[in-house]
Amino acid sequence: MTTAIRSEFDQGIALTRHLDEPGRYDGELGAGWQIGGGVNGGLLLAMAGHALSLEHGVAGGGHADPVSISGYYLSASAPGPATVRTEVLRAGRSLSTGTASLSQDGVERLRVVASHGDLAADDGEVRTTAQAPQLPPPDQCIGVEHAPKELIAQAALLERFDLRLDPATIGWALGQPSGNGRIQGWFRLADGREPDPLLLLLVADALPPVTFDLGMPGWAPTIELTVHLRARPVPGWLRVTHATRNVAGGYFEEDAEVWDEAGRLVAQSRQLARVPRRA
Amino acid sequence: MTTAIRSEFDQGIALTRHLDEPGRYDGELGAGWQIGGGVNGGLLLAMAGHALSLEHGVAGGGHADPVSISGYYLSASAPGPATVRTEVLRAGRSLSTGTASLSQDGVERLRVVASHGDLAADDGEVRTTAQAPQLPPPDQCIGVEHAPKELIAQAALLERFDLRLDPATIGWALGQPSGNGRIQGWFRLADGREPDPLLLLLVADALPPVTFDLGMPGWAPTIELTVHLRARPVPGWLRVTHATRNVAGGYFEEDAEVWDEAGRLVAQSRQLARVPRRA
Repeated sequence: MTTAIRSEFDQGIALTRHLDEPGRYDGELGAGWQIGGGVNGGLLLAMAGHALSLEHGVAGGGHADPVSISGYYLSASAPGPATVRTEVLRAGRSLSTGTASLSQDGVERLRVVASHGDLAADDGEVRTTAQAPQLPPPDQCIGVEHAPKELIAQAALLERFDLRLDPATIGWALGQPSGNGRIQGWFRLADGREPDPLLLLLVADALPPVTFDLGMPGWAPTIELTVHLRARPVPGWLRVTHATRNVAGGYFEEDAEVWDEAGRLVAQSRQLARVPRRA
Repeated sequence: MTTAIRSEFDQGIALTRHLDEPGRYDGELGAGWQIGGGVNGGLLLAMAGHALSLEHGVAGGGHADPVSISGYYLSASAPGPATVRTEVLRAGRSLSTGTASLSQDGVERLRVVASHGDLAADDGEVRTTAQAPQLPPPDQCIGVEHAPKELIAQAALLERFDLRLDPATIGWALGQPSGNGRIQGWFRLADGREPDPLLLLLVADALPPVTFDLGMPGWAPTIELTVHLRARPVPGWLRVTHATRNVAGGYFEEDAEVWDEAGRLVAQSRQLARVPRRA
């Protein structure tokens, strides 16, 4: 007898199609994905993207991969039941576009617009001039088990990750932020679940806020997060970089790149976040 | 007697509130904003952002400036009447978030989600590490009147602009694209209308596609465009850069930065666009 064990991530974004309401999916936000008092924004984006994958998989000709997805965060989410209501705006030949609204107890947490397609159908031509990040190998990077206890206590989701940060970008954990506005490292899921497009939506928001490296501790609430998925990742480690170049007026942008073991730039994302309040 | 002359841009995004349908605004897409057979995507984004400015101005406590705005382009627009239907999702203390749907004859052209605020209320702290582009002065740059006639013929909107491109990034106009994936120059409106937040939404999509500089002629349809407004621009010239670093799988990202004469990085944008079809 074979018992299918669902990964923590697949369980985290699992959805049940509602029988009486077209386009509606029900899920459960797990306590294990909390960070700083709310549920991680990347997980919410992945759940909403998952709902649209299911919707387009039936109605949209197999456009199951998010190619571009934008989320606006409306209120802090909490562990417990969540509902995602989807609307298909356009079912095209290569892309299908729709909206998703994730709510809890009737209060909207996240509004998403996204275009889904089939990343396996890409024509393969690649002209990437971006440079992959240079990182020491994973066993020479710093696991989050070495992070300050008060950080871990606020970020249950770190236990889901095997995250190894580049020692050159982790001075903030020792009270010596570099001021460069850059954090980078290796990422995989702790339970060994391999990467796919939906996981990349989580990865885009998985590292500590880049403001830690600017000497600004505290969690940075996301206003908006857009992820472009540019290729299906191969199995293995992901290299992730977070960087900011414009902290101003109480906000900052955080650009993430995700590279897979084949050396492909598989995802690019940018979020606008609020600068953490001073302690 | 004083006659108020409305600028071309203000006329281009002008809206009338519908008396019988809350949240609805009616406008007219002008033939002068066409490019490559459709109406410029930046102008559409500015019109949708304008509708939400009006909506939040009444309902949202003076949150008239788009701070973050994301648009998904659903079908090609044409000169003629357009309707924008808005919905306020959340009216917060510092930001109000809403959706806007721009349609023509019942066909949706653009779906937007955006958070509006008051850029004048920012606390002023600026820690920008991004470097402003180095450009020769405007009178040593290349006006679009020197662009190939077949380009001008497809881009009526260029007549609205005083756009001066850096000679170092305009080799493509002479059949010698640099291959760097970068186009930059000075921008202002031809009729002298000074920049403001809504104009920056147009500017983010105003330069020729950066793929021209990669030797890929043809217009590049936008899938998604997100603009972050980071400060109110001062009057005068804007410096604009467009760059791409990841052409892959039939799509490319185009990152734009807009700097004002005070040296502020006033807007950052990224779009995902389709690689132009081969001629």
